Amino acid sequence: MGDPPCWLHLFDDFDMTTSLAPDLASFFTTHDARIHEELFDFLRIPSVSARSEHRADMTRAAEWLAGSMRAAGLTAEILPTGGHPVVLGEWRKAGPQAKTVLVYGHYDVQPAEPLELWDSPPFEPTMRDGRIVARGAVDDKGQLFLHVKAIEAHLAARGTLPVNIIVLAEGEEEVGSDNLAAFITRMKDRLACDYIVISDSAMFAPGIPSILSSLRGIAYFEINVQGPAGDLHSGSYGGAVVNPAMALCRILATMHDADGRVAIPGFYDAVREWEPAAREALRALPFDEEQLRRDVGAPALGGEAGRTVLERLWARPTCEVNGLLSGYTGEGSKTVLPAKAMAKVSCRLVPDQDPAEIERLMAAHVARVAPKGVTVSVTQLHGGRPWRAELHGPLFDAARRALAKAFGREPVITGEGGSIPVVGDLDRVLGAPILLLGFGLPGENAHAPNEWMSDENFVKGMHAIAALWEELGAA
Amino acid sequence: MGDPPCWLHLFDDFDMTTSLAPDLASFFTTHDARIHEELFDFLRIPSVSARSEHRADMTRAAEWLAGSMRAAGLTAEILPTGGHPVVLGEWRKAGPQAKTVLVYGHYDVQPAEPLELWDSPPFEPTMRDGRIVARGAVDDKGQLFLHVKAIEAHLAARGTLPVNIIVLAEGEEEVGSDNLAAFITRMKDRLACDYIVISDSAMFAPGIPSILSSLRGIAYFEINVQGPAGDLHSGSYGGAVVNPAMALCRILATMHDADGRVAIPGFYDAVREWEPAAREALRALPFDEEQLRRDVGAPALGGEAGRTVLERLWARPTCEVNGLLSGYTGEGSKTVLPAKAMAKVSCRLVPDQDPAEIERLMAAHVARVAPKGVTVSVTQLHGGRPWRAELHGPLFDAARRALAKAFGREPVITGEGGSIPVVGDLDRVLGAPILLLGFGLPGENAHAPNEWMSDENFVKGMHAIAALWEELGAA
Repeated sequence: MGDPPCWLHLFDDFDMTTSLAPDLASFFTTHDARIHEELFDFLRIPSVSARSEHRADMTRAAEWLAGSMRAAGLTAEILPTGGHPVVLGEWRKAGPQAKTVLVYGHYDVQPAEPLELWDSPPFEPTMRDGRIVARGAVDDKGQLFLHVKAIEAHLAARGTLPVNIIVLAEGEEEVGSDNLAAFITRMKDRLACDYIVISDSAMFAPGIPSILSSLRGIAYFEINVQGPAGDLHSGSYGGAVVNPAMALCRILATMHDADGRVAIPGFYDAVREWEPAAREALRALPFDEEQLRRDVGAPALGGEAGRTVLERLWARPTCEVNGLLSGYTGEGSKTVLPAKAMAKVSCRLVPDQDPAEIERLMAAHVARVAPKGVTVSVTQLHGGRPWRAELHGPLFDAARRALAKAFGREPVITGEGGSIPVVGDLDRVLGAPILLLGFGLPGENAHAPNEWMSDENFVKGMHAIAALWEELGAA
Repeated sequence: MGDPPCWLHLFDDFDMTTSLAPDLASFFTTHDARIHEELFDFLRIPSVSARSEHRADMTRAAEWLAGSMRAAGLTAEILPTGGHPVVLGEWRKAGPQAKTVLVYGHYDVQPAEPLELWDSPPFEPTMRDGRIVARGAVDDKGQLFLHVKAIEAHLAARGTLPVNIIVLAEGEEEVGSDNLAAFITRMKDRLACDYIVISDSAMFAPGIPSILSSLRGIAYFEINVQGPAGDLHSGSYGGAVVNPAMALCRILATMHDADGRVAIPGFYDAVREWEPAAREALRALPFDEEQLRRDVGAPALGGEAGRTVLERLWARPTCEVNGLLSGYTGEGSKTVLPAKAMAKVSCRLVPDQDPAEIERLMAAHVARVAPKGVTVSVTQLHGGRPWRAELHGPLFDAARRALAKAFGREPVITGEGGSIPVVGDLDRVLGAPILLLGFGLPGENAHAPNEWMSDENFVKGMHAIAALWEELGAA
């Protein structure tokens, strides 16, 4: 890969030799061993939110984190939810003119199974080849903890912070954050803030600091096709009774045109293209499409004509079949003309597509193309709005400067094809600009055995966040 | 329904007032009560071939049938197969100039479950509203037994038969006739014959004697589409990785054109249209398409444009999806981009389509339309040739005259959309013309609770078969 492009030439007015203030940098150097020991203590607690046998560990992790926040100089409370508690750390002494930043993270982790695939026990953290290896190292304990340490650096070195800070650490991210929306709604006033910062994602590549600026939404449907009242013998009735499985395939085959564009009328009407400069920068990212093809093991990649792979993944909506079921699916042959056929179909959405409007368009399209002889229903099972960051403003500017200070180079802007539901909840309830600033790396096995976080990124992440508080204070 | 059309004006030279010879007719009248008692004895034996707990009943049924054949004047042997035995009855005293007829039937029956849906116990035969109600009444004990009685009528009334007769009664028809092909191949010389007669099907409608003249064959495929090596997250990869479920749907959607014709190139090349007169007669059959639609419970019927329902079912080949499976098919939503997708697809074939050639055409078509980015395989799981009777010759002529004598009206020619595998085996091994002369009726619940046979058809069936021996002797 060549050198990534300068992002929108942001740094014309910026001295790229600048780095984190010496007093803050010195704190991280001086306390490096202790910081790592503390992180390892945190990682040793098997806070698996999905497993009831780890309930005591969840409590222990919350208490450990609250203690760590207090040691850093925050006040900290463990607040109940309908499920695992939230740890809320606060420091609000920056004064009435200062901005308030809310940091979101989570202290729960994925189950570690299958244990036999780990090269070292998942809850015995170890440093191996510059990697912190443990369940939760990158998702999200390491990334949450570096925020606490960046706060501590300011308070230890200077006795103060340039911004007010709220750290909201939940314990249910890995099980769907079912209680978070209600919690932040209930605590709306206390959580009021000017900016929101989340470190729970990955950089584009090693050495390339990244701002995650877009998430796709989703509109998830079940399409059911009913033909005859019951299964029929395909010999006795085949040819005269409309086959619902074939009808379903013919319906689904109308979802795309020959260029791989979604062919549902009106589907692209609300799509807001990326700004030309952003699109140009996206196209210039040094992305190895052949490597992706090898990684997924497909004979070729595909998708919408005239778009790069990253555009297809981050900037363009999709229509996918997630499941198909009809008739006989066991071994061998059964001559059944099925009574019904079912498909799970989901559209990934980009701003400003609306799941409710997409449902209307999908239902109208299916009704239009459905053949006679079958009854077709379309049900939306799940909807989530897409999200895109504004690529300007004080938070964005502070982030790119902070990242440049920590990593010695300008950040790139990335997107994400999936959703991070908490972003939608925070956006909707708190209404503050959101910055997704992740320090993970591709291939870090976040939900798999041998999860790791680059120690370099952990350290530079602390630098970047400490710099971010400075930048936001100066903004 | 109006009066069915005269079949090809066969009877211009035939006195329609003619009926079965008085001595034979008198036999059936005189012995009516005994014949029914014997049939009921046969029906009382629960010869369920599928259930091992009925093994002794199978033996008992074979022995009962052999005894009944001997009482009628045949010799009879119970011959072993790899499964349930064959009962072979023979009478070969018609002399060297006489023709030899092989009658095929089966003495095994379907399981009777669910028993609670029977209005009377399945193995306690009863006469109700002119119907003989019992498991096996029409499929096939009743229809097999009327052949034995027709032979008995000749031998009792005249001491001789105008043809040599072999009765081959198997005990595994309801479990797939797995051992029959090997049996008839091994016994090929002993089973050599001029004609084959099978009564194991239904008439077109009450009062309308029917000759079943065509069976469709089958080419049954499994189509597997492989995309990425493993399931992927549809958010992270959707839009850039070709979705194998969508690819499968797009492939299957190419199987038909807008007129409902199979669009696989070359698919119709070997199709031999019915003779114009036969097609005209088929179209003139009084078939209620709306009744079929109501029976199957579909909102509308469909199929190939320009063809009647009966043509679509009997005279035209099809391509049907029998099963679909891909990705997530459980409750709710899962955002998976599936690694693979599978379809069971079968083509019903008509003469002279060949399952092997259809496999070649199917594989070539799928390879041609398969999108890039997936690997597609086509495997034939099962193939069976179509069959069509010659609608002329001594056997056909004898049958239409015999049916006219018994039913007082000319027969119609019908087809069958499914297959009767034994027909293919008998055709291939013995090479004699086959006559499918059934006395069942639509709706007789052959494989369902409350199976019945019309007693009128049972009696007229004996007349027709007794007349058939006469006609074949005179031919």
